[in-house]
Amino acid sequence: MKTRYIGNVTTQNVDGPDKVTGRAKYVADMTMPDMLYAKVLHSPVPHARILRLDVSPALAIPGVRAAITSDDFVEYGNFGFPVKDMYILAFQKVRYVGDPIAVVAAETPEAAQAGVEAIVLELEELPVVADMKSAMSSTASLVPLTAPLEQGNLCAEDIVRNGDPGPLLADSAVVLEQRYEFPHQEQAYIEPEAVLAVPEPDGGVTVFTNNQSPFECRDVLVETLGLPPEAVRIVQPPVGGAFGGKDEPLYQCSAQAARLAMYTGRPVKLVFTREESLMTSYKRQAMNIHLRIGADQDGNLTAAQATLLADSGGYASMTPFVLWRATVHAAGAYRYQAVQVDAEAVYTNNGYAGAFRGFGNTQAAAAIEMAIDELAQRLGRDPLDFRLQNCLRQGDRTMTGDVIEHEVGLAECLEWVRDHSEWSRKRAEYAQQPADALKRRGIGVACYFHGCGLGSEGEDFAVTTLRIAPDGNITLTSGLTDYGQGSRTVFTLIAAEVLGVSPERIHILRPDTYTARNSGPTVASRSSIVGGNATRVAAEKLAHTLRLAAADALGCTEEQIVRDGEAFIGPDENPLPLEKVVAHARQMGLQLSTVGRWHAPPIEWDFEKGHGRPYFAYVFGAQVAEVEVNQRTGKVSVLHIWAAHDGGTILYPTGALGQLYGGIAQGLGYALMESFRYENGYPQTLSLAKYTIPRAKDVPPITGTYIQTRLKDGPFGAKNLAEPVMIGTAPAIANAVFQATGERFHSLPIRPQKK
Amino acid sequence: MKTRYIGNVTTQNVDGPDKVTGRAKYVADMTMPDMLYAKVLHSPVPHARILRLDVSPALAIPGVRAAITSDDFVEYGNFGFPVKDMYILAFQKVRYVGDPIAVVAAETPEAAQAGVEAIVLELEELPVVADMKSAMSSTASLVPLTAPLEQGNLCAEDIVRNGDPGPLLADSAVVLEQRYEFPHQEQAYIEPEAVLAVPEPDGGVTVFTNNQSPFECRDVLVETLGLPPEAVRIVQPPVGGAFGGKDEPLYQCSAQAARLAMYTGRPVKLVFTREESLMTSYKRQAMNIHLRIGADQDGNLTAAQATLLADSGGYASMTPFVLWRATVHAAGAYRYQAVQVDAEAVYTNNGYAGAFRGFGNTQAAAAIEMAIDELAQRLGRDPLDFRLQNCLRQGDRTMTGDVIEHEVGLAECLEWVRDHSEWSRKRAEYAQQPADALKRRGIGVACYFHGCGLGSEGEDFAVTTLRIAPDGNITLTSGLTDYGQGSRTVFTLIAAEVLGVSPERIHILRPDTYTARNSGPTVASRSSIVGGNATRVAAEKLAHTLRLAAADALGCTEEQIVRDGEAFIGPDENPLPLEKVVAHARQMGLQLSTVGRWHAPPIEWDFEKGHGRPYFAYVFGAQVAEVEVNQRTGKVSVLHIWAAHDGGTILYPTGALGQLYGGIAQGLGYALMESFRYENGYPQTLSLAKYTIPRAKDVPPITGTYIQTRLKDGPFGAKNLAEPVMIGTAPAIANAVFQATGERFHSLPIRPQKK
Repeated sequence: MKTRYIGNVTTQNVDGPDKVTGRAKYVADMTMPDMLYAKVLHSPVPHARILRLDVSPALAIPGVRAAITSDDFVEYGNFGFPVKDMYILAFQKVRYVGDPIAVVAAETPEAAQAGVEAIVLELEELPVVADMKSAMSSTASLVPLTAPLEQGNLCAEDIVRNGDPGPLLADSAVVLEQRYEFPHQEQAYIEPEAVLAVPEPDGGVTVFTNNQSPFECRDVLVETLGLPPEAVRIVQPPVGGAFGGKDEPLYQCSAQAARLAMYTGRPVKLVFTREESLMTSYKRQAMNIHLRIGADQDGNLTAAQATLLADSGGYASMTPFVLWRATVHAAGAYRYQAVQVDAEAVYTNNGYAGAFRGFGNTQAAAAIEMAIDELAQRLGRDPLDFRLQNCLRQGDRTMTGDVIEHEVGLAECLEWVRDHSEWSRKRAEYAQQPADALKRRGIGVACYFHGCGLGSEGEDFAVTTLRIAPDGNITLTSGLTDYGQGSRTVFTLIAAEVLGVSPERIHILRPDTYTARNSGPTVASRSSIVGGNATRVAAEKLAHTLRLAAADALGCTEEQIVRDGEAFIGPDENPLPLEKVVAHARQMGLQLSTVGRWHAPPIEWDFEKGHGRPYFAYVFGAQVAEVEVNQRTGKVSVLHIWAAHDGGTILYPTGALGQLYGGIAQGLGYALMESFRYENGYPQTLSLAKYTIPRAKDVPPITGTYIQTRLKDGPFGAKNLAEPVMIGTAPAIANAVFQATGERFHSLPIRPQKK
Repeated sequence: MKTRYIGNVTTQNVDGPDKVTGRAKYVADMTMPDMLYAKVLHSPVPHARILRLDVSPALAIPGVRAAITSDDFVEYGNFGFPVKDMYILAFQKVRYVGDPIAVVAAETPEAAQAGVEAIVLELEELPVVADMKSAMSSTASLVPLTAPLEQGNLCAEDIVRNGDPGPLLADSAVVLEQRYEFPHQEQAYIEPEAVLAVPEPDGGVTVFTNNQSPFECRDVLVETLGLPPEAVRIVQPPVGGAFGGKDEPLYQCSAQAARLAMYTGRPVKLVFTREESLMTSYKRQAMNIHLRIGADQDGNLTAAQATLLADSGGYASMTPFVLWRATVHAAGAYRYQAVQVDAEAVYTNNGYAGAFRGFGNTQAAAAIEMAIDELAQRLGRDPLDFRLQNCLRQGDRTMTGDVIEHEVGLAECLEWVRDHSEWSRKRAEYAQQPADALKRRGIGVACYFHGCGLGSEGEDFAVTTLRIAPDGNITLTSGLTDYGQGSRTVFTLIAAEVLGVSPERIHILRPDTYTARNSGPTVASRSSIVGGNATRVAAEKLAHTLRLAAADALGCTEEQIVRDGEAFIGPDENPLPLEKVVAHARQMGLQLSTVGRWHAPPIEWDFEKGHGRPYFAYVFGAQVAEVEVNQRTGKVSVLHIWAAHDGGTILYPTGALGQLYGGIAQGLGYALMESFRYENGYPQTLSLAKYTIPRAKDVPPITGTYIQTRLKDGPFGAKNLAEPVMIGTAPAIANAVFQATGERFHSLPIRPQKK
């Protein structure tokens, strides 16, 4: 299929000019007349009962206008999905360092801070549940407010039951059994949490906030403020980055600022400092993974067994869904005869964990890819060749037993990174390096698969609206958020392509619960498929209306019309410009707005039995890392990354490459530097000086490509890419460092021994 | 409160210019390339079992493209609220003459008609249930497909239990007991039913139709076509009149045309002839009312007892709700010590009945007002003076026992019509006419009350959206339909008033389920209160946004701003034009769309106990008719009508007077000429030659006014007026004819005996 805008490598991000010129206005940039400033009282301890909380001294501070606690919300502000265990402000207990307890609004930020400091807070400290292992002990302090005795600090459980690996592993020629440990990772988005809430004359509230799921945010405010849905409006200015992390903390901040705005009748602004952001943002789950995988003497994988234990921290947030995704990806992108997985998440008094790029597959893929590498080594096989032999191909069954019916580009990805990295030559060459050289090089590979969309995590749909004006310009609304991943550009291209108009014609409104339609949360790399399809549907309907009008104007049937650029041409070959077609449609009485809704194909997962079809499609990829290790300092330098990703048709190539580069940088941080540490529940890395993320100089040259398969259900054949492009990087680097040093790593970040 | 646009007598209807110049495009005016024409096979008999229905011969007719029956819909197209007893096309049985059985789509209307005639239909005729009395006999044929044995043809029941009238009536000085009979009345809107359905590329359908409740229509199509809500779009071009009658038949036509469009992939148009409209439109319920009312020797009403029996025809439609409204209005706008009402509606094989201006109160008010007149006569009292003595005033309890807390203008209405009609002089003068004069005159009065909005019939809410463009022009959407009653003008005035902008700034989109928000059905004269309040709320929010922006631009607080026309002025007294404020708001990052939702105050009616608060407010009114009767021919000429209505604040005076004139014309038809007759189920009046409605020459001079009370919950204090203004006319005329002829009437239309 020939396309004009889809896949065009010259397309630039529609938000680019505003962002590079500084015209883009973020929430923190907004000010209003009579605006108040809010400051939060955070818990100073990881676990305590609130004995006394008195905000009245704050109200005595000059300039303070209001102060709120959990008492100021319906049902004390209880919310949360899938587990309703969070509060807008801490209720009865605090469960992690940073847990918000009270908020003060004042004429100046300084007065608000003075108000926070005047609040009387008496805490009875409780024993701290400091790690996953102790969380499930019978003597552990209970983190949730209440739980059945037998449940204790158990937060979630998941299983996969696909055959019986026991006998297969017993009969395998080689079995690898290994434990892996992964640290907490910080979101570290550039823009901290920010909210501006404006009270409305009908008793409702408009909230400008940089969260990533405006309709979910609205629903939390409706519930906790006790308002009808139309009384809460969530508006989303440009968002300065998010990787899954801009949901729950911003629901809390939004409800807090909204309540203060409703109490005072004045706009209230709440912006987190970097320290507050580091303290309260939810983390990638620390996770322990125990793997047993076997292969026969011909190098065919036989079976896999995995046990996962995840740290959910003080609250559940998305951890139950993250755990599920980790569970159904735990054995990786390979064919097995049988797979069993048992996974648990537990509450601790660490900062809570939640959604974060890769959503459990980051940890799962890192473990299985380090293990596969070690198994290949034991078999005496080249690790890339071993992967090629066992990797999933079209028609294969995944580890959960479902058949992949669509095209699978995984082998092609492996071959591409092999060929472009000169894998075989380097692999052989580096095997010959002197053992005592100061600097040794290595090359390593990893691959992955990743289920598309929400899978069994929820309703997977989106809605796009289009409206064409008399001048031929088109307004597009989507309920999905572009927080940098480029969905606004993708939707523009899809609408322009389907309508046969220039992309400059398309103007996308930012998400606003008053003008857009609910499209669920902006998560799971689902914008391009689900939102893209919704946009395609809306555009096809509008194109149909325009064709009907053009046919009527030109006195022919719809089928006789051909397009010349934006013009419509009938049998008499006189082109009718777009504007005239629009005018004619109006004159015919046709409506020039359309709504496109798309729902992902049905899937079914039996959570009890651990079996089913978790996703309607998968993406695949492979990465090769080349590293150099200074054996004296243990310092790892990544020299080059080669990456190939099967994301179906690539809609917006420049943006897709940007995602690839960004994902690899984030994966590199996960591999080599990032670990958000808690000591007995106290965070140790509350600044970007202490919590280091890759800088430009740390990111090596990257040679990347997209292997373009075609997904029947995807818009123009597209799948997705935003999250999965990061998950191959860390294990590829670990495996490369193994070749350089001979040292196997079973935890991240990698810290080679100094020799 | 000083207003600029609200209540301004110079305001004209926003649709006026388009309608008088012929620019307004109705559904029947729309054509599309490749459009097919649909024709319906209607039942020729009132009651029959369908033995055989074969549409395949129709498909053999040249030009026929598709033919459908009940088999082509989900659950055979079963729908209906509150009783799910209707079908998109007849299922198993036909229940009235005109019941749609099959629809054919073809290249021309003639081919479609030939297709209809080719359909093989074999019917087994069933005994006809011809009237209400025989419907409940134990030997009556059952009209519904199934019903519990004890229920038979009972369609609905309602009661009022407010004290015990028995002893009070026994002790009354005078008791009047009388039976009244009311005929079927035809809707007779100018524009017949019309639908144009266009198939959409995503498998959905867009339906242009002149129904009055677009979201209800959508829901019926979603249900019967088996589509998701976003796949069905209902668009409403201008509607050429409706009095409650453009719902169910148009749901049927819409689903039929939609199904044919989806089957053929081509636009399908279905437009009824006048005969089809007369045959299938639902009627005002024929109703028998039995009243017993008493008064003490001082002329104070004591108690009332009423029994109502309504003919629902072949289906339930809105009759259960109509019956309820009739029940809670049956004793009229008077104080009683006790009231009991027992009401039933029954199925027959007459054309079915449904919603129609007045909604049960038309019949109820006609009966009670003729009865009150006769009771006053027996007491030797002037009928107007007697009403003034007994009529409801603020703080009184209504016949259902609820206290009216808001202002009540009923006495003022009675006094106004008394004074303006020169009641006392004429009443006395006409009492002196010679008994044998060829022409005798009479003057009569009637009054009424009418509950506002849906009451206990359903969720009473509406949603309006507003969007201001950079040029300061404002787009308004509402899910409510303006089918001539003027709601588009009313919403324009409210938005302009609240925003302080010229009404020319406001552009209202017609209802469209893609751009407007669900606001429930457009019924119950509720647009001004509920939709008007929703518009007020949306406008207040937008005004707030503009004030915030202006304050920021002018460097002051919101409170310091004053308005000069559309401009905003701060302390420095330099006016900031509207467009600049909008531009500044945009630059601040504020969103310039708003949503206003309003829900009527809560009410509660216990249907089992027949007690509660049926409505949150009431309107009131009184009319005086002066007539001249030719005693030889029996011909009644209405010489003049005086009318006063308490509709709260009048928002759009010219439109309100138009409603008053139209309502009186329709009431005059009900009084003197309209009766849609069935003989053994066969309609006798299937043309406007046989079914006569008032023409311009039949309508007398009308002197009308509005008594402006103020309803706290109404927008700017408004209540409503569209329906109730018709219900006083028929009894006022009947009572006037009594004075002229000495003859009491107990049925409509009035046909005085020739002498």
